[in-house]
Amino acid sequence: MPGAKINELLSFDIHHVASLIRARKISPVELLEAALQRIEALNPKLNAFITIAGEQARDAARIAEREILRKRYRGPLHGIPIALKDNIETKGLRTTAGSKILTDFVPDADADVVRELRRAGAIIVGKTNLHEFAYGITTENPHYGPTRNPWDLERVAGGSSGGSAVAVATGMAFAALGTDTGGSIRIPASLCGIVGLKPTYGRVSCRGVIPLSRSLDHVGPLARSAADAALLLELLSEARHSFRSPFSMRKSSTRTPRRAELRKIMFGRPSKFFFDRLDEEVQSAIETAMNRFEKAGAEVVEISLPDAANSGEAGTQIALAEARRYHESQGYYPARAEEYGDDVRKRLKQGATVRAIDYLQAMETRDRAASEFDAAFACADVIIAPATPVAATRIGESIVKIRGEEETIRSAMVRFSRPANLSGNPALSIPCGWTKNGLPIGLQLIGKRWDERTLLQIADVASDELSDIVAGSRKSAAARSVD
Amino acid sequence: MPGAKINELLSFDIHHVASLIRARKISPVELLEAALQRIEALNPKLNAFITIAGEQARDAARIAEREILRKRYRGPLHGIPIALKDNIETKGLRTTAGSKILTDFVPDADADVVRELRRAGAIIVGKTNLHEFAYGITTENPHYGPTRNPWDLERVAGGSSGGSAVAVATGMAFAALGTDTGGSIRIPASLCGIVGLKPTYGRVSCRGVIPLSRSLDHVGPLARSAADAALLLELLSEARHSFRSPFSMRKSSTRTPRRAELRKIMFGRPSKFFFDRLDEEVQSAIETAMNRFEKAGAEVVEISLPDAANSGEAGTQIALAEARRYHESQGYYPARAEEYGDDVRKRLKQGATVRAIDYLQAMETRDRAASEFDAAFACADVIIAPATPVAATRIGESIVKIRGEEETIRSAMVRFSRPANLSGNPALSIPCGWTKNGLPIGLQLIGKRWDERTLLQIADVASDELSDIVAGSRKSAAARSVD
Repeated sequence: MPGAKINELLSFDIHHVASLIRARKISPVELLEAALQRIEALNPKLNAFITIAGEQARDAARIAEREILRKRYRGPLHGIPIALKDNIETKGLRTTAGSKILTDFVPDADADVVRELRRAGAIIVGKTNLHEFAYGITTENPHYGPTRNPWDLERVAGGSSGGSAVAVATGMAFAALGTDTGGSIRIPASLCGIVGLKPTYGRVSCRGVIPLSRSLDHVGPLARSAADAALLLELLSEARHSFRSPFSMRKSSTRTPRRAELRKIMFGRPSKFFFDRLDEEVQSAIETAMNRFEKAGAEVVEISLPDAANSGEAGTQIALAEARRYHESQGYYPARAEEYGDDVRKRLKQGATVRAIDYLQAMETRDRAASEFDAAFACADVIIAPATPVAATRIGESIVKIRGEEETIRSAMVRFSRPANLSGNPALSIPCGWTKNGLPIGLQLIGKRWDERTLLQIADVASDELSDIVAGSRKSAAARSVD
Repeated sequence: MPGAKINELLSFDIHHVASLIRARKISPVELLEAALQRIEALNPKLNAFITIAGEQARDAARIAEREILRKRYRGPLHGIPIALKDNIETKGLRTTAGSKILTDFVPDADADVVRELRRAGAIIVGKTNLHEFAYGITTENPHYGPTRNPWDLERVAGGSSGGSAVAVATGMAFAALGTDTGGSIRIPASLCGIVGLKPTYGRVSCRGVIPLSRSLDHVGPLARSAADAALLLELLSEARHSFRSPFSMRKSSTRTPRRAELRKIMFGRPSKFFFDRLDEEVQSAIETAMNRFEKAGAEVVEISLPDAANSGEAGTQIALAEARRYHESQGYYPARAEEYGDDVRKRLKQGATVRAIDYLQAMETRDRAASEFDAAFACADVIIAPATPVAATRIGESIVKIRGEEETIRSAMVRFSRPANLSGNPALSIPCGWTKNGLPIGLQLIGKRWDERTLLQIADVASDELSDIVAGSRKSAAARSVD
């Protein structure tokens, strides 16, 4: 297969490229080389990867190639290049967590999720950049540099899983894993125009993932479609919380007509909080999407989630305390305080001031948030909200003005993502439009706990419904990023 | 059946009296009247009950009598008078938690455990005195007066389930429920010479029980024998954590010879901490017991539990924070601070000073303690230790001297009980001897998590082995208490 054509494959969904691999129309070795060339071309500008797994990946691709030639096909991830956020431990491949402290840390075991990926024959192409220790939402990393947004290199990619989002958006990998403690999968997915799924709390093992805040941490996929996210979730789910993807290998063969499916769906639109203080362009994109869904026969009902407004404060208290305790227990902070970037150091210092009774109160808010979401799903199939109140902000800025009101970018970006971290509900971001400046806008869908199946099915038909709106600038992503 | 004879029945085990009820040789009404007369005679001196459920209990006994006459026998608790610690909510019967704040609180629903007792046909005779809000170990209650030790009225009964222990020790009830957060079942059982079982964490529902510290709280039985404790545990276990008593209704019919059973048992004797700073008489009683077990063919092996020494500090931090949070969330503290006794008020005040990172560190100690105990059970069937380092102390005192060293009674009494609250292992106290002054000494047995079955079987044979030592002063308990 000629090089040019392989290059085009790099923007395909896993479902599509996997069928070519299975049919031996393309070899995992060729596909990896194309991905590595793409990384070589784009990474100097985008800074998505901290570590590229060149030789290790080539060895894995050769093995995959041999197995497939011998008809030992392992399934749809066999031979597929996948990127991993660099706080996910990889045996023999350094795992920095975006920190100076762990700059030379080479784990001697794989995280549970990495073991599953390797078993499925996926090819780990490298470790992606993140906000230091995943404790921030811009991926402006003081030690490895900022990851840049492929749609505007002067803007952030979002975070903390910024490198993972950029790798997937630009064809350096077909999908990536990230972690989400306050929105760290959904925010960069929203800002980079891809699909990012935070699963139900507890669905995917966090063992071997450097924690930020154990009560709020989730591992999940960043991908190009809901079907690809489902494929990864099926693989990553722990045995006792197993998940079956609603999509077969060939998406089109199992789908009933789109409009018929949207007609059945009740979208719950929170009456407050999730639609407050929202950038005009974002609001308009979300409303356009809702109108489209309604025209296709869906219903939009108002729902009430009064505790969502408390999730910011509760999440902050929990993360401050748990992060500080972790860094202290490892001997990192305060012992090596000077090795942290300013923002993370400041938060770790602050972590010691949280009182146990406030931490416990925050944990009660967490329980209440879960009950509140449970109740909302009595009358809605899915909750609809923006993923972020604004599109990508500029690198170096810390304040954003929304509807004339100033807010820290940190606080703005997590505003709508955090409630699902508290409650544990699965939530994802899908692309739903563009700003006038050509920046992606993300739509958030929040599902019932342990029902990613319905969530992903709705995300799939919703994406189809919006495909003409979203397609516009899509093809030029990689091209524009290297201009 | 003549009054005198019924009076004797009041000191029988449930297993024995239940067979008489079943055979309709005694009626639940007669039995209850005898118990109420005993309460009337003894309670003014011992102060075991805060509330006596006279008419409610009589109604229940009449129903039980009718059912049994109609051959609708519900099982071994049918018609048996049972006492409940007054922090366990009872529908229509006030539940003070030993506090002034709840002095008029009449719950409109039963705690889960009460519902189970009523379903089994047990007769709730009353609500027993406790340390205020269960937050202390002497049952010197500032609002309802101290509960007195039946073996020496100038001494404490232990706590916080002091009234429950006294009720069982003196024949005012056949068994009682208590709660144990740092030893509150085992300590009064030890000091009053009965059996007190703290089950595995999570085995028995705490719903409807006024919490002290949710991470450490356990509900469990106080009884006269391991077999009776097993009977109650079987009833109280939650459906998803069910437990089958190893003892049939008629104990003797299923037991293999005692010595044969002890021969199989490996007692793990912790090499440190549990045998440090121990009153001479207590130490001697425990050693005598171990010698007896060895002579009967058991083995005593040294085991190591290095984190046990940290359980005091960790348990204190967790309880301080969780208790304060609960009382704050209910609007009790600080709003009504002046309505608390001095000691509890002081601790609730202190609760706000615990830092979240110290709370989290304490929770890590809790997890480590569980793993440490799990490891110890690789080479032991049961762990043997004193229940308390001293026998009952005097009412009004707060310091005790052990081996020439002064220690607060509070800290001394929980020293050996707390590790099992942290780790969640089931643990019980059985009588094992007497001080020269005629005070009971308790032996603690700690079992493998979720294996109360083995623990209770060993407690049963161990009690049999020690029966001649323990019997001595036993019969005179009630008599002496009213002298």
